[in-house]
Amino acid sequence: MAQHNAFYAQSGGVTAVINASACGVIEACREHGDRIGKVYAGHNGIIGALTEDLIDVSQESDEAIAALRYTPGGAFGSCRYKLKDIETHRAQYERLIEVFKAHDIRYFFYNGGGDSADTCLKVSQLSEKLGYPLTAIHVPKTVDNDLPITDNSPGFGSVAKYIATSTLEASLDVASMCATSTKVFVLEVMGRHAGWIAAAGALAGEGEGEPPHLVIFPEVAFDREAVMARVDEAVKRYGYCVIVVSEGARYEDGTFLADAGNTDAFGHRQLGGVAPTLAGMIKQDLGYKYHWAVADYLQRAARHLASKTDVEQAYAVGREAVKLALAGQNAMMPAIKRVSESPYEWRIEAAPLAEVANQEKFMPKEYIREDGFGITSACRQYLSPLIQGEDFPPFENGLPKVAKLRLAKVEKRLTEFTL
Amino acid sequence: MAQHNAFYAQSGGVTAVINASACGVIEACREHGDRIGKVYAGHNGIIGALTEDLIDVSQESDEAIAALRYTPGGAFGSCRYKLKDIETHRAQYERLIEVFKAHDIRYFFYNGGGDSADTCLKVSQLSEKLGYPLTAIHVPKTVDNDLPITDNSPGFGSVAKYIATSTLEASLDVASMCATSTKVFVLEVMGRHAGWIAAAGALAGEGEGEPPHLVIFPEVAFDREAVMARVDEAVKRYGYCVIVVSEGARYEDGTFLADAGNTDAFGHRQLGGVAPTLAGMIKQDLGYKYHWAVADYLQRAARHLASKTDVEQAYAVGREAVKLALAGQNAMMPAIKRVSESPYEWRIEAAPLAEVANQEKFMPKEYIREDGFGITSACRQYLSPLIQGEDFPPFENGLPKVAKLRLAKVEKRLTEFTL
Repeated sequence: MAQHNAFYAQSGGVTAVINASACGVIEACREHGDRIGKVYAGHNGIIGALTEDLIDVSQESDEAIAALRYTPGGAFGSCRYKLKDIETHRAQYERLIEVFKAHDIRYFFYNGGGDSADTCLKVSQLSEKLGYPLTAIHVPKTVDNDLPITDNSPGFGSVAKYIATSTLEASLDVASMCATSTKVFVLEVMGRHAGWIAAAGALAGEGEGEPPHLVIFPEVAFDREAVMARVDEAVKRYGYCVIVVSEGARYEDGTFLADAGNTDAFGHRQLGGVAPTLAGMIKQDLGYKYHWAVADYLQRAARHLASKTDVEQAYAVGREAVKLALAGQNAMMPAIKRVSESPYEWRIEAAPLAEVANQEKFMPKEYIREDGFGITSACRQYLSPLIQGEDFPPFENGLPKVAKLRLAKVEKRLTEFTL
Repeated sequence: MAQHNAFYAQSGGVTAVINASACGVIEACREHGDRIGKVYAGHNGIIGALTEDLIDVSQESDEAIAALRYTPGGAFGSCRYKLKDIETHRAQYERLIEVFKAHDIRYFFYNGGGDSADTCLKVSQLSEKLGYPLTAIHVPKTVDNDLPITDNSPGFGSVAKYIATSTLEASLDVASMCATSTKVFVLEVMGRHAGWIAAAGALAGEGEGEPPHLVIFPEVAFDREAVMARVDEAVKRYGYCVIVVSEGARYEDGTFLADAGNTDAFGHRQLGGVAPTLAGMIKQDLGYKYHWAVADYLQRAARHLASKTDVEQAYAVGREAVKLALAGQNAMMPAIKRVSESPYEWRIEAAPLAEVANQEKFMPKEYIREDGFGITSACRQYLSPLIQGEDFPPFENGLPKVAKLRLAKVEKRLTEFTL
C-alpha cells in the first residue's frame, strides 16, 4: 500500500504521561514504515498544523523516543486553542488541507481531553466535508478523568497516585506536630468541575480516624457550618485534621470558594487559592493553627511518582491509535475498558469521537459518601487499580532523566498563515 | 557494665528522614543490650519526659523499627517546646531527674534542629549541675540545613531532591503550555531565614535558559523592579519563566513579602503566601498569565523521593549517637564531615553541643550569584552530592508502606506534672 505521513500533536493541559502516549504513537508508526512515512509533530498542538510549524520526528533517535515514556510535560508543546466549525471558519480547514497536502499527511493523531476531542472531531470531517483523505484519531489524556466512555483517562491515575501519596505523607507530618503546633492541614488539588482528583486523596486512609478526615468536592455545595463542625470533631477526636479540597469547591449558588472576595495586596482576585481561603475560615471559626499546600502543576507533572497502570495505558492508547488509523477508522478514540475488577484487567476498545467530544464525566453520586465528606467503597474500588504499580524514571545525578529531543523543524513550503 | 535505659525523642519540625535517625538510634541500642536496657521514646519530644508520657519501644518488633527507615513524619510525636534554663526553671529539671530515676534512664537522645539542640544542651547539664548521671546526645535534623559545624543537616538532602525534581518537572509542564497559556510559574519553598531550600531548586537546570530562571532568596533584599525586569526578559527570551521563591523572601527593611498586606476574605493576614503575592505582582506589572504552587509540608514529608545520601546520613547519625553515649561523651552531637568532594565522601565526627545550639548557618555569600537570582558553581558543588541516589520506600496497594507501631505506653509511676 502507499506510504503517507502522519501528524501528531498535544493539546490542552499536559500530564505526567502524555509523552508516553506520544511514545506509543511514534513507535507504532515506526513499526509500520510500509504505510506510514514520517511523523510530523505539531509545535503547540493544532496551531502547529495551521501555521505549518512542524517538527520532523524522524530525526529523533529511537532512544530519544523511548525516553518520552518517562518524560513529563508535552514534548512538542501544547495549546489551548479551539477550532470553530467548518461552516463558520472554512478558511482554517482549507489551510489545514493545504498544509497536509504540502507534507503528504494522511494520518492525524490528536492527544488531548474533551475540548481537544472536539478539535479532532472537526478535523476528522475534512474527508467527508472537504474531500481530503485524512484519518483522524483522538488519543485521550486528561488529569481531570472527565472523558466519557473510557473507563478512565490516561493522566489521571498518576495524579491520583501523587495526591494519595502526598496526603498520606503530609498527614504523618501533621500527626507528629499536632500536640503543640499545627492542628489542621489543607491540601488543594486540581479539578474545577469534577472531584475525581480530590477523591483520590481519600485513598490515603480507610480505617477509623485515618486521614484525610475531610474531602471537599465541587459536586457538594460548601456548607461552612457543617465543614467546621467536622474539622472541630476531627481535631478533638484525633488531635488533628487533614483536608483535601478541590479547587472547584463552591457554595450552593455556584460561587467558587476561591473567588469569594479573596484579594491580594493590590486588590486582585487570587486564583487557585481555595486552600488559604479555607484555612483562614478555620482559623477564624475554630482558632486552630493551620498549614496549607497548593500542589498545582506539581501534581500533574510528577512523573517521578507515576502510576505504572497509567503509564501502560497512556502508551497503549498511543499504539492503538495508530492501529485504528491504519484500519481506516476515522473519527475514533481508543478508550479504556475495565474488563475485570479483581484482578483488575483492562483492554482497549474504539469509541466514536462524536460520543466523546464536549462531554464531561462527573463523579457518580454513589461515589460520594452520604455525608458529602468522603468516598464510598464503590469509589475506592474504582480508583484503587488506577494507582497501582510504580514506574520510576531513570535518575541521573540525583534528578529524573528526561528526553532530550532535537526538535528539528520541517522546512516550510507555504506562505504564512495568521490564526 | 551496668545496664540502664535510654530515652529518645523527636523535636521541632519533622522531616522525611527523622525516623531513619530513630531507626539508627534504636537499632544501635538493641545491639548493646549489655549496657542499654529498654528504649523509652518521649511522646511529643521533651514533653513526654516532663509528663512521664513514655512509649515502650521494646514492644516494637525489629521489622517495625526497620520500617521507620522509610516512614516520614515523627513516629513518636514531635513538639515545639523550649526549656528555660536551670536557674530560671529548676522545677522542670528536677522533674526530669524524677522521671529518669523512676525509669532508670541514663542515656538521653534528642533528635532535632537548632532550638532542640538548646534543649538537649540544657538537659546535658543535669549531670554537672544537679548530679544526675545522664549522658545527653543531640541527633541532628532539620530541613533548613542551618545547623552549624555539620557539613549539612539530615533532612535537608531529601527536601532538596524533592524541590529540584518538582522544579524540573513543573518547568517541563509550563514550557509546553506557554505558547497559548501560562507564562510564569512560581513555586514557594520553605526556609524562613536561610535560602538553602530555594537554592536546591536551582539544581533543576544549569545551562543557558534552563529553568528555574529566578531564585528568590531571603538573603537578598527583594527589589520588585529588578525581579520584574528579569521575569520579563525570561518570558521574552525563552517563552516562559519559572521562579523558585523562599517563604522568607523579604524587602530591604525586613518585611516579608508574604506579610505585605495580603489578607483573605475575612481580613486575616495570610501566612505562607509569598507565591500568590509574587504571582499577583507579576500579573499587575507585566500582565502574564501565571500558576503558582506552595509545597509546604509536602516537601518535608516526601519520603517517596528521599535522597539516598540523606537517608544514609540520617541513619548514621542515629547510630553514632549511641556510640558517643556509650563512650560517655556527654553534650555532643554527631556531625557530618565532608571528607572528599569528588567522589563525594563523608564521615561522622563528634561536635560539642555548646557550639551547635542556637546558632544558624546562613548561605555563604559566595553561594549566591552576583545578580542575586541564582546559585554559583560553588553552591552547586556543595548541594549536588546531597541529593544523590534514590531510596524508594516499598509500596503496597499503590501507596508507600509506612511503619505501623504499637506505641504502647509505659505505666506511669509518678504524680502528674503541669508544664
